[in-house]
Amino acid sequence: MNKFALFHQPESRFAYATADNGLTVILRASADDNLTVEILYNNKYDFTKKRSVVIMQRCAVDGIFAYYRVKLKFSDARFAYIFRITENDKVYYYSEEGLSTDYNFECAYYTFFQFPYINSVDVMPVVDWTREAVFYQIFVDRFARGNVVKDDSYINTRWDGEIDRYSFTGGDLCGVREKLPYLKSMGINAIYLTPVFLSPTNHKYNITDYLAVDPQFGGDGELKAFLVSAKKLGIKVVIDTVFNHCDVSHKRFRDVLEKGRKSKYYNCFIIDGDYPDVSMGNYAYFADCKYMPKWNTNDAETRKYLIDIALAYLNIGFDGLRLDVADEISHEMWRQLRKEVKNKFPEALILGEIWHESEQWLKGDQLDGVMNFKLQKILVDYFGLNPITAERASERMNGLLMKNTEQANAMALNFLDNHDTPRFLRFAGGNSDKVLCALCAMIMYPGMPCIFYGTELPLDGGGDPDCRKTFDWTFTDSNEQYAEAYKQIIALKGLSPLCGGECEISADGGLLKIARTKDIEKITAYFNTSGKDIKLAQIGETIFTLNCDNDRIFDNGAVVIKNIL
Amino acid sequence: MNKFALFHQPESRFAYATADNGLTVILRASADDNLTVEILYNNKYDFTKKRSVVIMQRCAVDGIFAYYRVKLKFSDARFAYIFRITENDKVYYYSEEGLSTDYNFECAYYTFFQFPYINSVDVMPVVDWTREAVFYQIFVDRFARGNVVKDDSYINTRWDGEIDRYSFTGGDLCGVREKLPYLKSMGINAIYLTPVFLSPTNHKYNITDYLAVDPQFGGDGELKAFLVSAKKLGIKVVIDTVFNHCDVSHKRFRDVLEKGRKSKYYNCFIIDGDYPDVSMGNYAYFADCKYMPKWNTNDAETRKYLIDIALAYLNIGFDGLRLDVADEISHEMWRQLRKEVKNKFPEALILGEIWHESEQWLKGDQLDGVMNFKLQKILVDYFGLNPITAERASERMNGLLMKNTEQANAMALNFLDNHDTPRFLRFAGGNSDKVLCALCAMIMYPGMPCIFYGTELPLDGGGDPDCRKTFDWTFTDSNEQYAEAYKQIIALKGLSPLCGGECEISADGGLLKIARTKDIEKITAYFNTSGKDIKLAQIGETIFTLNCDNDRIFDNGAVVIKNIL
Repeated sequence: MNKFALFHQPESRFAYATADNGLTVILRASADDNLTVEILYNNKYDFTKKRSVVIMQRCAVDGIFAYYRVKLKFSDARFAYIFRITENDKVYYYSEEGLSTDYNFECAYYTFFQFPYINSVDVMPVVDWTREAVFYQIFVDRFARGNVVKDDSYINTRWDGEIDRYSFTGGDLCGVREKLPYLKSMGINAIYLTPVFLSPTNHKYNITDYLAVDPQFGGDGELKAFLVSAKKLGIKVVIDTVFNHCDVSHKRFRDVLEKGRKSKYYNCFIIDGDYPDVSMGNYAYFADCKYMPKWNTNDAETRKYLIDIALAYLNIGFDGLRLDVADEISHEMWRQLRKEVKNKFPEALILGEIWHESEQWLKGDQLDGVMNFKLQKILVDYFGLNPITAERASERMNGLLMKNTEQANAMALNFLDNHDTPRFLRFAGGNSDKVLCALCAMIMYPGMPCIFYGTELPLDGGGDPDCRKTFDWTFTDSNEQYAEAYKQIIALKGLSPLCGGECEISADGGLLKIARTKDIEKITAYFNTSGKDIKLAQIGETIFTLNCDNDRIFDNGAVVIKNIL
Repeated sequence: MNKFALFHQPESRFAYATADNGLTVILRASADDNLTVEILYNNKYDFTKKRSVVIMQRCAVDGIFAYYRVKLKFSDARFAYIFRITENDKVYYYSEEGLSTDYNFECAYYTFFQFPYINSVDVMPVVDWTREAVFYQIFVDRFARGNVVKDDSYINTRWDGEIDRYSFTGGDLCGVREKLPYLKSMGINAIYLTPVFLSPTNHKYNITDYLAVDPQFGGDGELKAFLVSAKKLGIKVVIDTVFNHCDVSHKRFRDVLEKGRKSKYYNCFIIDGDYPDVSMGNYAYFADCKYMPKWNTNDAETRKYLIDIALAYLNIGFDGLRLDVADEISHEMWRQLRKEVKNKFPEALILGEIWHESEQWLKGDQLDGVMNFKLQKILVDYFGLNPITAERASERMNGLLMKNTEQANAMALNFLDNHDTPRFLRFAGGNSDKVLCALCAMIMYPGMPCIFYGTELPLDGGGDPDCRKTFDWTFTDSNEQYAEAYKQIIALKGLSPLCGGECEISADGGLLKIARTKDIEKITAYFNTSGKDIKLAQIGETIFTLNCDNDRIFDNGAVVIKNIL
């Protein structure tokens, strides 16, 4: 056995509570080893006397590592355990002291692993409505212009004109509201809305006033009308919430510009000197943008100011927060925000923009989920121009699932592209069928699928600003046909195994296979990006179910099969 | 290179901030591999353009794994990095995507490791006074009886009588106060006091009234007098704080016993049914002790009640809290307690009783440190009757240091024994020299040494209640001589490298070597439990410094050497 490959850590993604009486325990080992892994467990005070034994299932392979998992239910909240590993009749024990060929149960109190008590307040729940959510991301200036009279003097680019970084094309909340029935008809039941509050830019990620809807987008009245309409249609709305930084025109920053250290808002920012100087940039700001001064979330008053804004958003009627640049803001801020938000709005979704490993935000005290950039990268690498093998895609998808708890995986916002990346169509070299296949894979994968506006046309585009083109509402026949396929794929999310069922991912005969199972239902999807014809018959028995009503075959290799177990 | 051995996790004990501009980064690899490990890093927004490169030092070997560490100081709080590993001229890269022989810096934004922003509020500080602290643990009923008149009708065992679980021998806070000058003379500057509040037992871990000092121990007045005297002598006092459970006689539990679900305290406990029933035990309690009902720290009001008690303790004048059974109480409780405690008493120490892996409590949002049962086990295994090798002891000590951040290691309460374990003298088969050697090793190791009352006699004893014998104040010559050696060892803690210096642990010529370095000073200690004579000359050059004033040689193999670098 490869002792270097073994890994377990209590109270982490390797051991976490899913309910007051439910615990998931995972042991990592080498993928090359053929092991029987058992967990020996009991109430910690009786562990030295007797133990239950359960075999753990090899649930995922991420390349060099295999993961053995067990989901236990038990009535005592106090839990001690060790692992017994058998390889070729040779028995090993794995405890907090490491690997050994013998284990002294008498001294176990010093060396067992423990999950000392499941306190319900520490268990991270899944926000119920997110299980069936299909999100649609709307960049407001580019989605739809409403049928309403407004001061349009700010518009500097025709709807069908060439977009640059400084384009204002006139999209607004009235437009979004008018298109809600369209979204509903497409199968969308949640919207991720980029910022709508007063800001000098088209993207509005540098906010001047957090509580005034930008008149360009229709002002406060339009936001209310939009939220009322969305609620009527059962569409949830998550608002992009920009707490890392504001615009230099924000009144608190202006006050500090004027009064320097004497301003009561001086500590709201991180300033090197008595006064901030916008030309010098002697203060913390986002990326290399001096016009976006960073909020100082080390400061308690600043945290309170921002958290009150978050509460105001939820009071207006938003169903969740998508927190921009969440990873550069203090953990203390997120702990406090979560507490206050969940206290008043237990069903509000708290989603963070984190491109990288995110376990430390997703333990139940901070965020619910993150934007799943890691999945996007795998989808790009598998469905893109130079595809990785089905095996490598399967390994990376499994590895990603093992990086977080089930709850955090369930509330990850999965996407093919967004306003900060090239359009998926571009990654796929213009092959729109590949976009549909990738969409299907994303919907099969645990989490909340989110589709960037215009994917259904499909819209093309490179990096910002090219990915932020206007939506062309003059649907052609070809658009219609494409949108129909897109709708069919989205509709898969209505199948119950895709709303929280178990997930198995593997490579099967050169195909990427994603299977979801819940109760007696199993949905399996196969994907082929090998460039070669691979007949599903090679996969085995499942071929016989292909004629079922709910099976669908898409062009370019995606096949979805529904089995009754 | 052994790819299975590689491990790194951002925002964990493998990457943590020590200051606003200080970051420690650690990569784990196989101990068998001969690697050059470099970190390539920069501000995350400029990482794709250019990187700084620093070689990481192999700082610890825990058996099969070696740890490579770097402590960086840099002015930008936003940090991206990957590792470059060279083995026999072959170059590898290790990023969030795993190991590769090539790395595409163009796409790095998806795959680098990051420490996205050091927010000062998230950085865990070391409580300053703990660096030089030498603790003495006092079990009040057994330490000293004060020269004071009190109702002694509760005393059922003579001071020199046989102790059982139900013995009351009459020790009290007046006794502790009178012995403060003695403790001071021994080099003690901090006390860990077991519970003193109203309780029917001698140990008082089942509390009836959290804010009334037990009259057996002298009542509220004696506590105040004791704390005033301790403060005058510069002795800190940490109080054992029992928030996991109380006694069935606690007024809140009595109210629930009487009124059941109608009691306003019903949610303070975890009850299965309308009424708790002490004979049935239909409620959560500690271990198998039905007379110790567990507090429900899922409940906000209960948390507030207990946290207010903690604040009251610090207001009275205690310098810190030792939290009993800390691992079975909700994380939410500790987050809230830390916030309120550190807000008013930033220098208060928050110490938890956790026997097992404790990283999840020690990230800066909950506890400062834990009772170091893991170190105790190593000391018992190395200095006990069947000693493990110096090499194994060194590996386990290194492994333990790598389990937590430097700050958490600095605030671990290290001990040889306590009121829940046999006396170390018993583990050492009655060899009192071994106790001194183990004490010396413990003082050399990072953290706060804590000596159980009576170790200086030395007191012998097996498990509870045998380890809780009374202190025999009739010092013999042999006691005096032993206490003098003990004092000399404690005095080592006055050497600056032992108060926060770097620590290197290894096995050297069959000896266990612990070296601490700070600025230009280096203190090295060698230990020999092999049963064979090993001449220090074998160790090399250091032998020549043995004549320095500050070098000390103890019986049975402990040698401490001071070098000026």
